[in-house]
Amino acid sequence: MSTTVSIIGGSGYGGGELLRLLLSHPNVEVKQVTSRSHLGEYVYQVHPNLRKRTQLKFVDPAQVEPVEVLFLALPHGKAQGKIDEYAALAGKIVDLSADFRLKDAANYQKWYGEAHAAPEWLGKFVYGLPELHRAEMAGASYISGVGCNATASNLALLPLVKAELIDLSAPVVIELKVGSSEGGAEGNPGSHHPERANVIRTFSAFGHRHTAEVIQELGVSNVSLTMTSVDLVRGVLATAHATVKPGVANKDLWKAYRAAATENPFVRVVKEQRGIYRVPEPKILAGSNYADLGFELDESNGHIVSICAIDNLMKGASGSAVQCMNLMLGWDETLGLEFAGLHPI
Amino acid sequence: MSTTVSIIGGSGYGGGELLRLLLSHPNVEVKQVTSRSHLGEYVYQVHPNLRKRTQLKFVDPAQVEPVEVLFLALPHGKAQGKIDEYAALAGKIVDLSADFRLKDAANYQKWYGEAHAAPEWLGKFVYGLPELHRAEMAGASYISGVGCNATASNLALLPLVKAELIDLSAPVVIELKVGSSEGGAEGNPGSHHPERANVIRTFSAFGHRHTAEVIQELGVSNVSLTMTSVDLVRGVLATAHATVKPGVANKDLWKAYRAAATENPFVRVVKEQRGIYRVPEPKILAGSNYADLGFELDESNGHIVSICAIDNLMKGASGSAVQCMNLMLGWDETLGLEFAGLHPI
Amino acid sequence: MSTTVSIIGGSGYGGGELLRLLLSHPNVEVKQVTSRSHLGEYVYQVHPNLRKRTQLKFVDPAQVEPVEVLFLALPHGKAQGKIDEYAALAGKIVDLSADFRLKDAANYQKWYGEAHAAPEWLGKFVYGLPELHRAEMAGASYISGVGCNATASNLALLPLVKAELIDLSAPVVIELKVGSSEGGAEGNPGSHHPERANVIRTFSAFGHRHTAEVIQELGVSNVSLTMTSVDLVRGVLATAHATVKPGVANKDLWKAYRAAATENPFVRVVKEQRGIYRVPEPKILAGSNYADLGFELDESNGHIVSICAIDNLMKGASGSAVQCMNLMLGWDETLGLEFAGLHPI
Amino acid sequence: MSTTVSIIGGSGYGGGELLRLLLSHPNVEVKQVTSRSHLGEYVYQVHPNLRKRTQLKFVDPAQVEPVEVLFLALPHGKAQGKIDEYAALAGKIVDLSADFRLKDAANYQKWYGEAHAAPEWLGKFVYGLPELHRAEMAGASYISGVGCNATASNLALLPLVKAELIDLSAPVVIELKVGSSEGGAEGNPGSHHPERANVIRTFSAFGHRHTAEVIQELGVSNVSLTMTSVDLVRGVLATAHATVKPGVANKDLWKAYRAAATENPFVRVVKEQRGIYRVPEPKILAGSNYADLGFELDESNGHIVSICAIDNLMKGASGSAVQCMNLMLGWDETLGLEFAGLHPI
Repeated sequence: MSTTVSIIGGSGYGGGELLRLLLSHPNVEVKQVTSRSHLGEYVYQVHPNLRKRTQLKFVDPAQVEPVEVLFLALPHGKAQGKIDEYAALAGKIVDLSADFRLKDAANYQKWYGEAHAAPEWLGKFVYGLPELHRAEMAGASYISGVGCNATASNLALLPLVKAELIDLSAPVVIELKVGSSEGGAEGNPGSHHPERANVIRTFSAFGHRHTAEVIQELGVSNVSLTMTSVDLVRGVLATAHATVKPGVANKDLWKAYRAAATENPFVRVVKEQRGIYRVPEPKILAGSNYADLGFELDESNGHIVSICAIDNLMKGASGSAVQCMNLMLGWDETLGLEFAGLHPI
Repeated sequence: MSTTVSIIGGSGYGGGELLRLLLSHPNVEVKQVTSRSHLGEYVYQVHPNLRKRTQLKFVDPAQVEPVEVLFLALPHGKAQGKIDEYAALAGKIVDLSADFRLKDAANYQKWYGEAHAAPEWLGKFVYGLPELHRAEMAGASYISGVGCNATASNLALLPLVKAELIDLSAPVVIELKVGSSEGGAEGNPGSHHPERANVIRTFSAFGHRHTAEVIQELGVSNVSLTMTSVDLVRGVLATAHATVKPGVANKDLWKAYRAAATENPFVRVVKEQRGIYRVPEPKILAGSNYADLGFELDESNGHIVSICAIDNLMKGASGSAVQCMNLMLGWDETLGLEFAGLHPI
Repeated sequence: MSTTVSIIGGSGYGGGELLRLLLSHPNVEVKQVTSRSHLGEYVYQVHPNLRKRTQLKFVDPAQVEPVEVLFLALPHGKAQGKIDEYAALAGKIVDLSADFRLKDAANYQKWYGEAHAAPEWLGKFVYGLPELHRAEMAGASYISGVGCNATASNLALLPLVKAELIDLSAPVVIELKVGSSEGGAEGNPGSHHPERANVIRTFSAFGHRHTAEVIQELGVSNVSLTMTSVDLVRGVLATAHATVKPGVANKDLWKAYRAAATENPFVRVVKEQRGIYRVPEPKILAGSNYADLGFELDESNGHIVSICAIDNLMKGASGSAVQCMNLMLGWDETLGLEFAGLHPI
Repeated sequence: MSTTVSIIGGSGYGGGELLRLLLSHPNVEVKQVTSRSHLGEYVYQVHPNLRKRTQLKFVDPAQVEPVEVLFLALPHGKAQGKIDEYAALAGKIVDLSADFRLKDAANYQKWYGEAHAAPEWLGKFVYGLPELHRAEMAGASYISGVGCNATASNLALLPLVKAELIDLSAPVVIELKVGSSEGGAEGNPGSHHPERANVIRTFSAFGHRHTAEVIQELGVSNVSLTMTSVDLVRGVLATAHATVKPGVANKDLWKAYRAAATENPFVRVVKEQRGIYRVPEPKILAGSNYADLGFELDESNGHIVSICAIDNLMKGASGSAVQCMNLMLGWDETLGLEFAGLHPI
């Protein structure tokens, strides 16, 4: 018998991708999907890939009925004010927004510029990256989303931090190159195609909100994220520059990265000596939940360049959310996330 | 128990896509994949999306062992000379190349410029488009591939021809806009990114070989295909210009197109009055096996514009090949082809 | 001494391109540029390529002072209601919009869906394509703009019509593939980068307004324009399908196309047997005023495919407008239009 | 009377761009252009933008006659072996390759992996970045080219180093995002469009040869260049991460960057608070010789992010070469380099 799920906020990119995944998930049945702006429309009119896959129409959020798992895919700031209502609808909630990622209300205020509307809920949510919190997710009731840039950054640094290979007193600079779907489904003057095509546009030199998730989750406090838009729809590449501790050599790095790949079904190490695809690249990850990791160590000065590629809408949002659901319900965490990605693309 | 399959020619785009599909097909087990140029390499070194999905390595074609179904994904002209050998290896063969698509050896010579090496085999193959030959495929032993441009053209015209709505004595002009993966995995001066990016390049005004498949399969003899490359990797859009018979109205067209969608699980009609995606578009089909159809009738002069969008590597090649295998083995034709495609992309 | 010019409507793409051209034109001095939405901003804040090229700021249209030549680059429908005011400011006007392209008020109403606000002015304007009206432009006071798609279509057909090589009773189908800058500087849901990137999107099967300019200018009445957006910012490729008169051979075509190139400094014939660039392609025309023409004749049935590539913002809008100014002032028509275009790009 | 120039190596991208610039340069006459692989072809068959601009054909390098200025645009390593021959042909030489950029033969060997063939010539060349060596160029006989990535890096750091605002003992990390034309006109498996499109591909984590030019020219020794290919044809964005000295504030930075823009006609500062183009972006520089600079200072930790955008084929290669010629001949350094770039593009 299928587990029932509904999605609050289904017309955005995160919600649409979530819907696609849940519609083909073997263990769940999607009951309702909401959208105020597209009320009454078939979901395939907004997400054209779902034509002939579902006859669901967008309903009003007020009409959502109780289900076993409720996914929240609202714009940031919208879920916190109604979290009690949502919790009355479902015993388990996965919230893709930024509302419940940070543990500390003061920290939330610092990075988001306003007081949190439900600070008492912050402690109830598990941060939604399975690679960091798999054990806590088993049986959890509330799981947050992840920032896509935070995820690429956290996974780029994960092997290094876990194996204690880098000097955390030295600055860590993470350069992120990102596709246009990161900006969401609503357009703005800068996303108009003639202006957005062909760009290499650095829109945040430092201070991006996702930085807070790297600091919180990895304890890397001296860290900067620099964000640059490039001409791609889906994908993030995080290139982290750090300094290894004295004596750390390539063999230590290989061991740490391989361990990450062994422990995590969606982590792969990409470090080839031949062929076209020698390093992690987001383009081949479109639609897949993989995080591809690679690294290069400059032995002359201990400078390590650690790279992580993901699909921002999958591993960086909806894919991780489904993986979290799988874990919280005790299922194989790869269920419904089997798509391998395409080549060429 | 799984059906065993192998692929001759697995390093090209068609072979790689086929491998991806077969690796996740619930009923089959992939035994061997060949490549001379990548002998001994892991298949994931060439098709990086398959990393962590298979440990298969490319083997020599001479080492292929008997299987139940053999897929041939060789460059055009290579399968015909060895078809007897291949037939000795497997009772069922699906050949993706152009070698066994045309029924008539003289016709083959006309379009391909050389005599066919195994004309006696031409009659044994069913033409590999399920939407045209579903019934014959049940129990068939040999099925050919399809030309990707031919497929987009044939499906654009199928509802019109089947319902006898267009005047076959009037010229039919089909304009095809195609992505770069059509050219295959081998580069050439014109596929070098600085030269190929941003193009709108009409590389064939008429006389393209795939025209032969439109003439043979639909009986539309007064037809021209004009081929234009655009900046996209996967996808074909065929825009067919024809003339309806006197008296044909929009309701007749709706009936014919809806019938095509009802009879064929991978055919959809896209003709919306609102939203962004009102007409068939290849971009949302990347990785999916759908063929999206649309049409517009100019009632003032009977000019009909019929549109078909496909992923050239899926419905136009490997996806149709898997669909054919499903049909020849009596399985649900959608098995292993469930991926919905992505939005946005 | 420089001729003074001003631009009404300078924040759009046509106006910006015009400004770029006029700022480096050896014979003119740009006095004022207007924009209501960007009032008071430096023009380089909207057109970033003009940084360090001009300190002009956008002024209110009401503040425009008399000049020798006034360019109107307003959205369609805006110039006609104020044409008397504008005519009071300058003895010579070049209007880039659609307002004064059609000669006949009834025809305007048919294609634009509303009555023309200044029908008495229609006859005063010369249609702004120098390749068709060069002689009339010498000394003219009012010149209209051209539709970019109309221009690509008209130039694709020009050699054929002028030399009377095609059968005008047979239907002419023109397929246009266009970049995103055609849609103008204002975004819409479909121009949001994640939705607009990678498209092959047929947004008009027939009935596009620019059709009226092909009918008027070339007398080709049985003509359809089919418009498809592709992933490119600047550029239009028109592919015209027509039927030659009996007996017309390749040598007749060569003669007609070569004549067009000889008579028109911005027309080139591209029909090579080797190299990457054998046919007209818009990508190499970005920023240039050339129209590249090519053709292929199917001698078996008289089907001719005639191709024209232009930059929609140059030859299809602002470049032609400057060329018209040059001609109306008796200057060399290539003045200020010398940029060759880039390779690679 | 025009100065005579010839180009050795004219079929590559640098040579082609140089030819375009020189053909429209008011003071020079192009006598000959060489290419072995395209011997006898019209240059417009390789550089299609030059059709109708020149009837020059590629000649054999052995047939080059004496001229006043000889440009060398050969692949790296080819000029050094024949520099005596070339010097016999012209009193002034500008070499675009890497052969004469480094002052020290041992340093050349270190970075290029082989001994220099003409070490005695290294000292005779002025390094070809006018922003660093303008005074020396007046009257110079030999000027080297510049590495495109080195140029973006050097100009990103120039204001900071010149005004002594950064701590040179702290590491400097420069992240470069580059277009596909950087790889030159010869294709390779990774430049095949289906593989190269949509990439974010980090092809060099550190150790790129252009690093040597940053160390030599700016004296910044603790520097790493990380190179990432993105989906663009022309353009480089360098994002330099450095640490300012204690007490350095935004006003100091503004002063330094403004000085760079005042002293150098092709340097601009881009740091806007509104509009779409607030930071330097390479896309609007295609075909222009500008270097756009911007910066952001994190006052909490002294982390400065300094950005430079250029067109790799212009300011990063051929544009700088023409600027050098202008300076060595005592002309206005902007001659022939007036193109403003395009918007939109």
